[in-house]
Amino acid sequence: MHGFTSGPVTAADFSDEERDAVYKAIYTRRDVRDQFLPDPIEDDVLMRLLDAAHHAPSVGFMQPWNFILIRDDVRKAEVRRAFTRANAEATAMFPDERQALYASLKLEGIVKAPINLCITCDRTRGGDVVLGRTHNRQMDVYSTVCAVQNLWLAARAEGIGVGWVSIYHDQDMRRILGIPDHVEIIAYLCIGYVDQLYDAPELEKRGWRKRLPLAELIHDNQWQGENPLSSGLPRRDPIAGLPATPSASD
Amino acid sequence: MHGFTSGPVTAADFSDEERDAVYKAIYTRRDVRDQFLPDPIEDDVLMRLLDAAHHAPSVGFMQPWNFILIRDDVRKAEVRRAFTRANAEATAMFPDERQALYASLKLEGIVKAPINLCITCDRTRGGDVVLGRTHNRQMDVYSTVCAVQNLWLAARAEGIGVGWVSIYHDQDMRRILGIPDHVEIIAYLCIGYVDQLYDAPELEKRGWRKRLPLAELIHDNQWQGENPLSSGLPRRDPIAGLPATPSASD
Repeated sequence: MHGFTSGPVTAADFSDEERDAVYKAIYTRRDVRDQFLPDPIEDDVLMRLLDAAHHAPSVGFMQPWNFILIRDDVRKAEVRRAFTRANAEATAMFPDERQALYASLKLEGIVKAPINLCITCDRTRGGDVVLGRTHNRQMDVYSTVCAVQNLWLAARAEGIGVGWVSIYHDQDMRRILGIPDHVEIIAYLCIGYVDQLYDAPELEKRGWRKRLPLAELIHDNQWQGENPLSSGLPRRDPIAGLPATPSASD
Repeated sequence: MHGFTSGPVTAADFSDEERDAVYKAIYTRRDVRDQFLPDPIEDDVLMRLLDAAHHAPSVGFMQPWNFILIRDDVRKAEVRRAFTRANAEATAMFPDERQALYASLKLEGIVKAPINLCITCDRTRGGDVVLGRTHNRQMDVYSTVCAVQNLWLAARAEGIGVGWVSIYHDQDMRRILGIPDHVEIIAYLCIGYVDQLYDAPELEKRGWRKRLPLAELIHDNQWQGENPLSSGLPRRDPIAGLPATPSASD
């Protein structure tokens, strides 16, 4: 029945050690492409990961996600072919001086990871009018991404690595996995135990891009000036108290 | 310089207690609308939350996010007016029998929360061709949502509640915060300490929607049959081993 309410209760406290564990998951999480071990993931562990995803925030409590587990070698090989075709196109899009480095990067662990997981968003779930989605139709998609990140952090705490593969044509993945039109593919994840990880994002370690200084990304009360990070141009409207902008070639 | 690589290192282990702490954050996280305390959030704590967001995964290490902190009462009041106007429109969209319940829900804590935070996505950062975004232009937006979820879980571990406000017209928020066209507004968050929280999602407690059974949301190797959750129709193509579908009116 509608309308039954029991109110909020005393919020659980986090000890310093518990708080630090959450940050440990956040800071040591990596996008894994090559460190997957062949060890199978036990069903109860896998269900813990999916249940963590299922407890993400969702707009209007819509829970728009589905989870397609891919463990079949033939299907993984099909997905990998779709990736390989798209990645060849991607390589050609980069400037000449970046192509060798791009081509040297391993960007997927589709076949190596024991489990692949496609997380989707059913745009029709909950009907035409969903609480909180009335003015932003993308909120269901955002909810689904929150589920991805919940799973990613839970996996880290279980000693399991996750890699997000995004280089494929949507139509290829739809065909391979039989996904209907009203369902959007949000994430294709490679999942497996790891005992080695990079101590910083792999793209940073390999010299692809640097971490931006956090202070440069913070604005007070409103967007101030042209953000210099997008263009590499000198800042036109400096924000008091923040360090000077590094040049784009630093 | 490009090309410098140091390889992966031994991955940090999580003790059982550390693992449980990550799940505790995931399971006790709530979308908070009314439980905010007036206590100010210390700058160092706030910076920890923003740094947790800044360590989200991002496509091509693009780090497309910015963080606009809103602490000014006048601006908060403007945002609240934008919400109130949109929420009146939203109320009218629901069927008659849902409108009274909808109107009874508190859906924002804009003025009550000591800090509001708008997280945006700069679609131009990193230039025209971004690694991993060549075939899915939305990956930068998804990265930014991962930053939201990192912050949300870190906040939970700090005893801080977060509520995501999504009921406003995009153009209103752009005007109030002075956000340029190449930057997309992803999330408007209300943030403050809490000592009380619901022990399940507020919309579930208030009878708006029920939690879906996880087993219903899992597919093996491909999307199987019509998903009965979106339509309430009986399942046409049952998945072996899963429980029967509850009717939509359960």
